[in-house]
Amino acid sequence: MASSSSLTLSQAILARAISHHGSNPSSDRVSLSTLTIPTFSGLKSSSSSSSSTKPSRIPRRRMNSSRPVRAAAIETLDKTTETSLVEKSVNTIRFLAIDAVEKANSGHPGLPMGCAPMGHILYDEVMRYNPKNPYWFNRDRFVLSAGHGCMLQYALLHLAGYDSVKEEDLKEFRQWGSKTPGHPENFETPGVEVTTGPLGQGIANAVGLALAEKHLAARFNKPDNEIVDHYTYCILGDGCQMEGISNEVCSLAGHWGLGKLIAFYDDNHISIDGDTEIAFTESVDTRFEGLGWHVIWVKNGNTGYDEIRAAIKEAKAVKDKPTLIKVTTTIGFGSPNKANSYSVHGSALGAKEVDATRKNLGWPYEPFHVPEDVKKHWSRHILDGAALEAEWNAKFAEYEKKYREEAAELKSISSGELPAGWEKALPTYTPESPADATRNLSQQNLNALAKVLPGLLGGSADLASSNMTLLKMFGDFQKDTPEERNVRFGVREHGMGAICNGIALHSPGLIPYCATFFVFTDYMRAAIRISALSEAGVIYVMTHDSIGLGEDGPTHQPVEHLASFRAMPNILMLRPADGNETAGAYKVAVLNRKRPSILALSRQKLPQLAGTSIEGVEKGGYIVSDNSSGNKPDVILMGTGSELEIAAKAAEELRKEGKAVRVVSFVSWELFDEQSDAYKESVLPAAVTARVSIEAGSTFGWEKIVGNKGKAIGIDRFGASAPAGKIYQGYGITAEAVIAAAKQVS
Amino acid sequence: MASSSSLTLSQAILARAISHHGSNPSSDRVSLSTLTIPTFSGLKSSSSSSSSTKPSRIPRRRMNSSRPVRAAAIETLDKTTETSLVEKSVNTIRFLAIDAVEKANSGHPGLPMGCAPMGHILYDEVMRYNPKNPYWFNRDRFVLSAGHGCMLQYALLHLAGYDSVKEEDLKEFRQWGSKTPGHPENFETPGVEVTTGPLGQGIANAVGLALAEKHLAARFNKPDNEIVDHYTYCILGDGCQMEGISNEVCSLAGHWGLGKLIAFYDDNHISIDGDTEIAFTESVDTRFEGLGWHVIWVKNGNTGYDEIRAAIKEAKAVKDKPTLIKVTTTIGFGSPNKANSYSVHGSALGAKEVDATRKNLGWPYEPFHVPEDVKKHWSRHILDGAALEAEWNAKFAEYEKKYREEAAELKSISSGELPAGWEKALPTYTPESPADATRNLSQQNLNALAKVLPGLLGGSADLASSNMTLLKMFGDFQKDTPEERNVRFGVREHGMGAICNGIALHSPGLIPYCATFFVFTDYMRAAIRISALSEAGVIYVMTHDSIGLGEDGPTHQPVEHLASFRAMPNILMLRPADGNETAGAYKVAVLNRKRPSILALSRQKLPQLAGTSIEGVEKGGYIVSDNSSGNKPDVILMGTGSELEIAAKAAEELRKEGKAVRVVSFVSWELFDEQSDAYKESVLPAAVTARVSIEAGSTFGWEKIVGNKGKAIGIDRFGASAPAGKIYQGYGITAEAVIAAAKQVS
Repeated sequence: MASSSSLTLSQAILARAISHHGSNPSSDRVSLSTLTIPTFSGLKSSSSSSSSTKPSRIPRRRMNSSRPVRAAAIETLDKTTETSLVEKSVNTIRFLAIDAVEKANSGHPGLPMGCAPMGHILYDEVMRYNPKNPYWFNRDRFVLSAGHGCMLQYALLHLAGYDSVKEEDLKEFRQWGSKTPGHPENFETPGVEVTTGPLGQGIANAVGLALAEKHLAARFNKPDNEIVDHYTYCILGDGCQMEGISNEVCSLAGHWGLGKLIAFYDDNHISIDGDTEIAFTESVDTRFEGLGWHVIWVKNGNTGYDEIRAAIKEAKAVKDKPTLIKVTTTIGFGSPNKANSYSVHGSALGAKEVDATRKNLGWPYEPFHVPEDVKKHWSRHILDGAALEAEWNAKFAEYEKKYREEAAELKSISSGELPAGWEKALPTYTPESPADATRNLSQQNLNALAKVLPGLLGGSADLASSNMTLLKMFGDFQKDTPEERNVRFGVREHGMGAICNGIALHSPGLIPYCATFFVFTDYMRAAIRISALSEAGVIYVMTHDSIGLGEDGPTHQPVEHLASFRAMPNILMLRPADGNETAGAYKVAVLNRKRPSILALSRQKLPQLAGTSIEGVEKGGYIVSDNSSGNKPDVILMGTGSELEIAAKAAEELRKEGKAVRVVSFVSWELFDEQSDAYKESVLPAAVTARVSIEAGSTFGWEKIVGNKGKAIGIDRFGASAPAGKIYQGYGITAEAVIAAAKQVS
Repeated sequence: MASSSSLTLSQAILARAISHHGSNPSSDRVSLSTLTIPTFSGLKSSSSSSSSTKPSRIPRRRMNSSRPVRAAAIETLDKTTETSLVEKSVNTIRFLAIDAVEKANSGHPGLPMGCAPMGHILYDEVMRYNPKNPYWFNRDRFVLSAGHGCMLQYALLHLAGYDSVKEEDLKEFRQWGSKTPGHPENFETPGVEVTTGPLGQGIANAVGLALAEKHLAARFNKPDNEIVDHYTYCILGDGCQMEGISNEVCSLAGHWGLGKLIAFYDDNHISIDGDTEIAFTESVDTRFEGLGWHVIWVKNGNTGYDEIRAAIKEAKAVKDKPTLIKVTTTIGFGSPNKANSYSVHGSALGAKEVDATRKNLGWPYEPFHVPEDVKKHWSRHILDGAALEAEWNAKFAEYEKKYREEAAELKSISSGELPAGWEKALPTYTPESPADATRNLSQQNLNALAKVLPGLLGGSADLASSNMTLLKMFGDFQKDTPEERNVRFGVREHGMGAICNGIALHSPGLIPYCATFFVFTDYMRAAIRISALSEAGVIYVMTHDSIGLGEDGPTHQPVEHLASFRAMPNILMLRPADGNETAGAYKVAVLNRKRPSILALSRQKLPQLAGTSIEGVEKGGYIVSDNSSGNKPDVILMGTGSELEIAAKAAEELRKEGKAVRVVSFVSWELFDEQSDAYKESVLPAAVTARVSIEAGSTFGWEKIVGNKGKAIGIDRFGASAPAGKIYQGYGITAEAVIAAAKQVS
């Protein structure tokens, strides 16, 4: 194992403080199971002995802000800040959390109280960031996967000088319109990278952020200029560890060797239902070794500052593996009567216990007070951060001079500005173009776009050859070829989606796509919802989008999925019918950088239809063919995706019988909703109530479009295992059914 | 570690055949990574040397079917069946799979060809079942988690004599209306226990089945009569292993010590995208040790029959842990040109390669032919199975004599017949009853029902105290207290749902419930869909069902979830408004044993409304109050759950102004849809188009009910973090809004 050699790097200084895992896990497990969590009295003596009574001072070296800033983070690892000041800062964090939760009478004080030491060390000593520009490209990323502990992050952002979290924001914790919502939300609070709270999402986002860094570093760094160079830190709790998604993504992180991903596992043995003993007795250490991680155990996360520092140093020295630092903490540390119990997890302490905690930790200050020396100590980050960014900007200027082309690409990725004329790369089709499955047409689009969009990368959950997602000009993103752009996610849909959220939120110009069968959006729905909520413009390439997949049967045939995403806010559900519509769907998806798009694509071959267009798709619903005049067709036939062909066929038949028939493609309901009333009336005149829709999915929601007098043809039951044509016939998804319905309603 | 002692049990006979894991995982990893998968030529010589040329005979001891049947399974582990016949049987299984896939020109031959040896040993030598009664209560359960390989199971059911899979059914593989669909479906094929295909679900179902066995055994077994005593076997593949859900449930299986769960990991190194090296390099062995499993490695799963037998024997000897038998196999074993490649995973071999495989394995028979000696060998299972069931029935008769009360309970569980008058236990409420959150009212119902329903058991994903799901009269189901009924799932929603599917499908009278916040149905949606598809009557207790949960914010506030489940086939989405409606929802949920129910419940307090009733809920939509006459109200106000109160308030105000207002509760759209047209007209007269609905969720779908002229008040955006009342005001979910809309439409 590669880890054993890396251990030697810091073994000497760590021998006492840190337990290494790897050589003999079974004995580790013994030590784990015999570990007793420090009782409160123990905590009290260790924490109050050195707190706030001693005078503290800002270390001299901080006075000189002209020293090379890059080195600062490493230097402070050598413990030049006085412990009493560290402890005071740590208690400041604790009480900001306690006070904010108390004022809101809502929230989770336990985690911030337990994790304040690692939070302090990360934001004060280790991480490189610029508080006045939370979007500086080369910043270290921090993700609080245990998002309920968000007051930890708000307190840290406040101390570090971020404008997004002023004292008044802390006082507005969890209130209407505040910048300090109940869980971290990147779209509300600059400085928060991703949106967490649903457990396990954050560590998955962190894997995505670390993947993005590794990829961009491999693509853009030069021997003389490592222009991309930052870490991703994450704090996750017992809850995150239990969620399957975290195992998925940590397996991938180990596989990819994401050495700059450092995750702190807040091992506090308490979850909402009580001691984790009731449901979580696995050896996390052993599991992570199996996943290919470097594992370190900090036994005293409550006051063991040097242990935490040494663990981070060791983690950084291990470059070929991600590191899990298991930090054993006491939830609600400092609370005399509630520490180490579930009661401190998710409720305010209550006035009495807040007082008792103040006494216990020797904290004489008013609520929300930051002591002057702590304030002064942290104040340096504004200057330091500006210097870090300035230094990087200078480095980038050098880079740009020497590597003009790469610099332009990197700029596009970091700014999100799409290269001029990119959309010209989109393929177009005529009715004479060969019939093809939209999954294949999708691959033509992806490969065309990969040539012009430097930030496009992605892959499939072990279905690349079914989803047709391989970029032919690139190889696989792997541990030793991270510059490549085909990502192999394995059969891990949920992790895949959440990793893509991390990639999308790393840089505005990164455009991740990911793929599986449409029905398996069920596995990743929680990640897709976070895409929508957190404004991550992920492109979901979802093939095999109906009973049209045939023999695999109902477990693999989506039915209710189109409706379920049409009901979801801030997401585009696109179901293109042919080549032009697939190109249109990609145009929309690429342009929508602040909302995700789902493309539902067929397994089966579809003809290229007359009248379809990219422009039409951009309007969501549009007229594909019409033999009526004066906006008064006898009947309007509507379809999406593979059923638009059926609507068109039915129209042909009806026209032969002398009917004036309009065919409308409803490729995206959301985009149609956004059009002007006049446009909508031009497509769906209110006076024409004879309307028939056909879609090989649930009819749920179609009433809105076909109206009370119209008819929706669809599937309101599960699918079946048989050849596709047989199922279409058996379920009545046919031109005959459309014709019959049209005659009935008109 | 407990496992080290158990190893001694069979160490002597296994020393050469099986690699033990546990004492030194790092060296295991080395041996794993240096393992070379057997090349085809190697396979050829080892398989063809002893195949079908030697004459085979049925061992003498099989002739006498009056010997104690229970011992049979163990005896055959001692290898009394001639190897040549075993091999012929194994090849029969392989070719039934090859031929069926070939005829359908669709399917997955690779897994059955690789797993045929373990399949044969399980169904022919190990498992106890009665082919003529696939529902015999005490049968061993088998789950093919890698469901795409279903031809393995169909071939085995066919050989074993199940009526559900005759030769003609094999020939109709994957065809319209057949009993042999593209993935195993319990509702189509008796003998198939659960519905698999979506990866990871099967192993989770298996954990549920094993939990059910452990629970029932602990509750009903007596020192003199172990009436519940069977195993759960499962085959899972690389894909299942990658899915997060499998880690969730295997962590629980280890925690619960499910010693009678024996899972075979088909370690074939191939998934759809090629070698698993591209995305799956973790040490599965080490991970499972971390999860608390006993791990055995069978290095030659292709022809190592004795290794497989010995591994099963060892697994059975380890009673306090589940066992993972990693069986290294060659996917598509026997195919000269396609074995050990992804091309054999999911496509027919093609006529040429089928021929080559026949030659290679020395198989001179026509497609679908079962050689006479193989047929004769397997034919004993019909008699044996009948004897096994008869023996058990006699045992149960003894049990019933001695333990009348327990026997009645067990009978109710095994038959699914609910105890007479159970519904009288449901609590009722009057408008004078105290206001309460429906999550609390739900707990009153659960506790009332637990007293009368012997099969009710369940729990929460670490939110028992928020979901209010604890049964106060019972303790926790744990490793050493499996007779208890409160299940602690930890933060593992997806695994929880799928485990409940397994419990529900173990016995018709087991009624599992499980709980989390409604928004986190996103994590478990794939399991919920399988509940609906596989007719598993799981009760989903989903609390915190809207913005009404307040401060936790949009990550925790469901919006589109009601719509998303209303669109799903064969599931009941219930959103009760108060105590009577909660009781009604439980009545419906308990009665619907073949479709799952989701109860959306409030975090916030709600008043007990006049006019609500259990009977009303059973109709899905019903009139709660009305001051109109002649079925002609001026306006109909509709609400569900926490918003029914708002509709009622608005009605009061409007009535003060002289309006004739009807208030309708739409607690379950599905149930309302099932009512007669006359009933529907009596609630929603077509002539009354002035309709207003209010629901704190997406308006998607409401158009169907309020019609084109009505108005749906809801939330078509994400929620917000603030006190609940503030969000209701801010989003306009108010009586004022209803009144204004009512005036607008009427």
